Amino acid sequence: MNLVELQTLMDDLYGARDRERGLASSVAWLTEEVGELAQAVRKGSRRQQEHELGDVLAWLASLANQLGVSLEESVKRWASGCPQCGATPCACP
Amino acid sequence: MNLVELQTLMDDLYGARDRERGLASSVAWLTEEVGELAQAVRKGSRRQQEHELGDVLAWLASLANQLGVSLEESVKRWASGCPQCGATPCACP
Repeated sequence: MNLVELQTLMDDLYGARDRERGLASSVAWLTEEVGELAQAVRKGSRRQQEHELGDVLAWLASLANQLGVSLEESVKRWASGCPQCGATPCACP
Repeated sequence: MNLVELQTLMDDLYGARDRERGLASSVAWLTEEVGELAQAVRKGSRRQQEHELGDVLAWLASLANQLGVSLEESVKRWASGCPQCGATPCACP
């Protein structure tokens, strides 16, 4: 799945509800999921880690949708190497 | 860019360094970026929001790499509708 498809999928599924609840709720929900991911990293199974990574990614896509931001555009900074030093792999001090 | 390409890109750029620093550092860094995203949502420009969304996504991909988890697999739960109610759009109460 590419990043555009991911945002479309999340908009189809949750866009109307998420817009109704508003941005602050989405930020709160994203934060909650990051907390669950942190716990899964510390003591969860690989399956739980996959589940929580997916939840964070889903909320990130939903938040991007509400902000009118393209995740595809947001990762173009890395396309030609590290944005700071320009190298692949990164050679920042 | 698809999710597999995103993980490969981040591994090429930062994989060796991130593995050296370890999982706890990546969780901390992800959390830091989520905080910066929250601030950009509250009072940042659209360009800053795009920047911070990209940073969170990059750290999420790096964390998935260290855990050996595929983000592509992690979002398959949503491919056939809401995982809870099965509907598109979600019709959960």
